Amino acid sequence: MWVVPESAIAGLMTPEAAFDAVEAVFAAMARGEARNFPVVREAIGHADALYGFKGGFDASGLTLGLKAGGYWPNNGKHGLINHQSTVFLFDPDTGRVSAAVGGNLLTALRTAAASAVSSKYLAPEGARVLGMIGAGHQSAFQMRAAVRFGDFERVIGWNPHPAMLSRLADTAAELGLPFEAVDLPRLGAEADVIISITSAFEPLLMDGHVQGPTHIAAMGTDTKGKQELDPALVARARLFTDEVAQSVSIGEFQHASAQKLISDADVTALGQVIIGRHEGRGDAEVTIFDGTGVGLQDLAVANAVVELAKQQGKAVQVDI
Amino acid sequence: MWVVPESAIAGLMTPEAAFDAVEAVFAAMARGEARNFPVVREAIGHADALYGFKGGFDASGLTLGLKAGGYWPNNGKHGLINHQSTVFLFDPDTGRVSAAVGGNLLTALRTAAASAVSSKYLAPEGARVLGMIGAGHQSAFQMRAAVRFGDFERVIGWNPHPAMLSRLADTAAELGLPFEAVDLPRLGAEADVIISITSAFEPLLMDGHVQGPTHIAAMGTDTKGKQELDPALVARARLFTDEVAQSVSIGEFQHASAQKLISDADVTALGQVIIGRHEGRGDAEVTIFDGTGVGLQDLAVANAVVELAKQQGKAVQVDI
Repeated sequence: MWVVPESAIAGLMTPEAAFDAVEAVFAAMARGEARNFPVVREAIGHADALYGFKGGFDASGLTLGLKAGGYWPNNGKHGLINHQSTVFLFDPDTGRVSAAVGGNLLTALRTAAASAVSSKYLAPEGARVLGMIGAGHQSAFQMRAAVRFGDFERVIGWNPHPAMLSRLADTAAELGLPFEAVDLPRLGAEADVIISITSAFEPLLMDGHVQGPTHIAAMGTDTKGKQELDPALVARARLFTDEVAQSVSIGEFQHASAQKLISDADVTALGQVIIGRHEGRGDAEVTIFDGTGVGLQDLAVANAVVELAKQQGKAVQVDI
Repeated sequence: MWVVPESAIAGLMTPEAAFDAVEAVFAAMARGEARNFPVVREAIGHADALYGFKGGFDASGLTLGLKAGGYWPNNGKHGLINHQSTVFLFDPDTGRVSAAVGGNLLTALRTAAASAVSSKYLAPEGARVLGMIGAGHQSAFQMRAAVRFGDFERVIGWNPHPAMLSRLADTAAELGLPFEAVDLPRLGAEADVIISITSAFEPLLMDGHVQGPTHIAAMGTDTKGKQELDPALVARARLFTDEVAQSVSIGEFQHASAQKLISDADVTALGQVIIGRHEGRGDAEVTIFDGTGVGLQDLAVANAVVELAKQQGKAVQVDI
């Protein structure tokens, strides 16, 4: 078994490798070559923790395994971040475990890569203004991936707690782009691509806010009840996601779906665009990608980082 | 993360430690302190493999994690056994992975321990004759555990393929007990405790075969369609299992349940007997324990072996 520790990931994984891995696995899902398994997610009744497993198999990349871990809201007192996960890969020819990989940074990178992949295929032509909704831990990863794979000239942002906006300003400065804090009507009017990455439980971005050709990557909603977008905005947009069943049950599209504003047939897997079976944006004014997060993304980036670690002599081989 | 490789398990794990761990976790389940998570089990469409996860949390033993792996029927060509699994333990206070343990031998030992625990609580007084149905890989583990924790004077056995009976004869000889191959009517009439451990898909032991006070540990059925016992035998026996929901859906009791010969209320979790909330055998002539195999058993024996490995300096610590 190869072991790649959490501490090695930052020095190994590149945004390009994460982007390529996520793009490839979305394509494999669309071709029917890769499949996520049912998700297990349990409140364990200890330390207020949510724990579970997201597994899958990609027959094209021969990637089999799972991400295990969850959300430990009191981890601050242990000096650890609240989201903790580990990815385990298995040899699909024998069932033997082949790798254990720290999953914390990988989760942030694969989530950012998913929204960047959605922008590659769905952003309006000539997109120059990036709008960020949310300024938590993940927002910096999102902005970095968007800027690296896009052609943005400035960043505008909004956050429920204005005091946290410094993270967006600092990240934009790191990327050499001007940043301005704005209200949501200005953000919706000026941004060409909007990334929402909050843990909100009510709509923040309203239908009336969004003006002109816009792509929205809604990355925050991964649980029943969470919500970032006005269902009326969802109803008038062209809709894409990583996995349709998940988006209409626990993703951003759960609300428009529950209100019968959309049907499952209105939601297209992004992989269909990647493999050329769906035109993507077409003549739509607004496109939305609902990034719910699937196990196959975790396996894809973990597989990529194990290969990089082996090439660079940074993977540890352990008998098991 | 502590790593205990498959090759170290045989030198570490004792039948006593497996017995104690399984008995304790059955008790914790009965007290409501331990819970199995939904099982994921998928045909992956590669190498004819079945792959999945069995997880759980024992709040009394603070054991959290999962067994991952499955059944790779063509593993012979790789020089590996067909059942391959690995157990991963997590720190329930933080969500960090704490151990990775080879799960192949542990699975055999925990399955054997479960039937031995059932015999401790359910075998008729003065049981001296052990009847074995099945002579596959697991039968030797079953016989060893039964003999170690029972007071048997002889072993009789039957197998669908008589050529394999030598495994039972050899194992009995290793344990210093006489062995005789018999037909099923004689086995049912003479044995006080019967262990069935086959992969049969039709009843082998019929109601008319079983005479006098008998305890049957039905250990082979863990999938829809598998079957070892005559439903009429199940219907007249007092019924126990590791987990009721699993026994009536994918365990031995699925058939009597589907035929409405029994209801869920007729099946008692063995843990209820262990903690003294159920009398166990009472005045029943025949008792049956349906050992379906739950994730918590795997976690319990893995936790025990990690502690033994740490004490004996045989666990490898790896940064992750």
